[in-house]
Amino acid sequence: MTLAFVMVNTVPDQMERVLEEIKEIERVEEAYMLYGVYDIVAVVKAETTEELKGLILRIRTVKHVLSTLTLMAIS
Amino acid sequence: MTLAFVMVNTVPDQMERVLEEIKEIERVEEAYMLYGVYDIVAVVKAETTEELKGLILRIRTVKHVLSTLTLMAIS
Amino acid sequence: MTLAFVMVNTVPDQMERVLEEIKEIERVEEAYMLYGVYDIVAVVKAETTEELKGLILRIRTVKHVLSTLTLMAIS
Amino acid sequence: MTLAFVMVNTVPDQMERVLEEIKEIERVEEAYMLYGVYDIVAVVKAETTEELKGLILRIRTVKHVLSTLTLMAIS
Amino acid sequence: MTLAFVMVNTVPDQMERVLEEIKEIERVEEAYMLYGVYDIVAVVKAETTEELKGLILRIRTVKHVLSTLTLMAIS
Amino acid sequence: MTLAFVMVNTVPDQMERVLEEIKEIERVEEAYMLYGVYDIVAVVKAETTEELKGLILRIRTVKHVLSTLTLMAIS
Amino acid sequence: MTLAFVMVNTVPDQMERVLEEIKEIERVEEAYMLYGVYDIVAVVKAETTEELKGLILRIRTVKHVLSTLTLMAIS
Amino acid sequence: MTLAFVMVNTVPDQMERVLEEIKEIERVEEAYMLYGVYDIVAVVKAETTEELKGLILRIRTVKHVLSTLTLMAIS
Repeated sequence: MTLAFVMVNTVPDQMERVLEEIKEIERVEEAYMLYGVYDIVAVVKAETTEELKGLILRIRTVKHVLSTLTLMAIS
Repeated sequence: MTLAFVMVNTVPDQMERVLEEIKEIERVEEAYMLYGVYDIVAVVKAETTEELKGLILRIRTVKHVLSTLTLMAIS
Repeated sequence: MTLAFVMVNTVPDQMERVLEEIKEIERVEEAYMLYGVYDIVAVVKAETTEELKGLILRIRTVKHVLSTLTLMAIS
Repeated sequence: MTLAFVMVNTVPDQMERVLEEIKEIERVEEAYMLYGVYDIVAVVKAETTEELKGLILRIRTVKHVLSTLTLMAIS
Repeated sequence: MTLAFVMVNTVPDQMERVLEEIKEIERVEEAYMLYGVYDIVAVVKAETTEELKGLILRIRTVKHVLSTLTLMAIS
Repeated sequence: MTLAFVMVNTVPDQMERVLEEIKEIERVEEAYMLYGVYDIVAVVKAETTEELKGLILRIRTVKHVLSTLTLMAIS
Repeated sequence: MTLAFVMVNTVPDQMERVLEEIKEIERVEEAYMLYGVYDIVAVVKAETTEELKGLILRIRTVKHVLSTLTLMAIS
Repeated sequence: MTLAFVMVNTVPDQMERVLEEIKEIERVEEAYMLYGVYDIVAVVKAETTEELKGLILRIRTVKHVLSTLTLMAIS
């Protein structure tokens, strides 16, 4: 099981819309808007690194996402 | 009362226009163009964190804003 | 209720010891070592911003912590 | 008149002590602890750039200051 | 012989396409998608700094590349 | 006399064109493309901070400039 | 098989010594000093994520290492 | 001929002393204290990359230097 925190930056005025769409993605456990360096954090859980890769690529296709930074937990 | 410093980056040649619009927003106490890592700092004061959230989302809708970084004061 | 992600950097060879001590702190829900820019993430929940402040100051006193970055969720 | 925001990082468990000492420095208008990338912001006002230089060098001598980043306002 | 690691950021949903195109460029020894701060790393080898310059300018013309950061090895 | 180093990032494949245009700006003493975090450095000299402000705003209007970071020398 | 690029920063005048020690670590394929943001890059290959964790913790115990940033390749 | 800008960070209260020592180093053309992200910039010129390496390693041995970032000009 791989746990990761995906930090997302978005087009400034689309933060809420992006959050809603990210929350709908399977394997996204939780997601929040943040004050600070990143606009959104998505907590994701994947069975395999293959699945994690798919998840991240999926988040990156959400409209108005500008960049992502994945922080994988060391299990 | 929550005090926060909202650091703003803008489309390069729209810095002055963005500053003018940010200054008009209610609860923005002061705002300045900066030399350095951020283009503009807006000093904002909100009664509640709910209001702060609204303020930041409002600043992010200003045209030509590229990104914001909110530094909240620890009261 | 305030949720925050506290990103921690530590003295390089003390990461595991710091993690253990952070996990013991009340109000720290979860904490993990990370690959990447930050060494540890601590997920904290506080009733008030006053309590959050105390929590962060507490984490900062853990021996071998070098710096912290608090990402507060916008509720 | 030059206005500047001096962002300060400190030894983790000395943030409050550093804040108190910075607040005592002449020409420091306000200073706050912050959540986020920087530990403290000091708002300083100097008559001349010569004076600003002195102020920044003064803040850098405060014990337990690790680094400073000066954001000068474009007047 | 100059060895360099070119860190690339891309339009979020074009990471795989950019990787494929970078891999085709002569003198690019290896290239990988990354978790973390950069989206892609390209390991390049150039005979001269003149050639390295050409290589980097070439990578920067790949469609959907947003930015590059070149880390040159000290030989 | 104020000396400043203006670090510029550009649209990836327009680095050379931006460099040529920046070099033409009065008060820009020198300008170079860089390997590394910034794409271009422009060394500028201004008589007054008023003039420096004008210079930076001028550089920011150059087409394909994405962002600037001004590092002012402490004289 | 997991491939990762471990970016290392060191005590300024100990860069060469750290490089030599890192090169001796098993599973470190290559390591170089760098110009730029990081002082050293170590290219590591691990059979399992368990082994990768061990490798990174091992690199972090090298004397004079100040911080590490692990960029894992998406396989 | 290789031109490089070496950005230096120092122990906070030793910035002036470090500047004086860096200015004495051969091949350092100019050096200034900076407001902003870096404390000092040293402009260096080397005949060969071998010489540049020596120069950077020399700057890194100056007492109270915390870190360096070398930005090499693309000639």
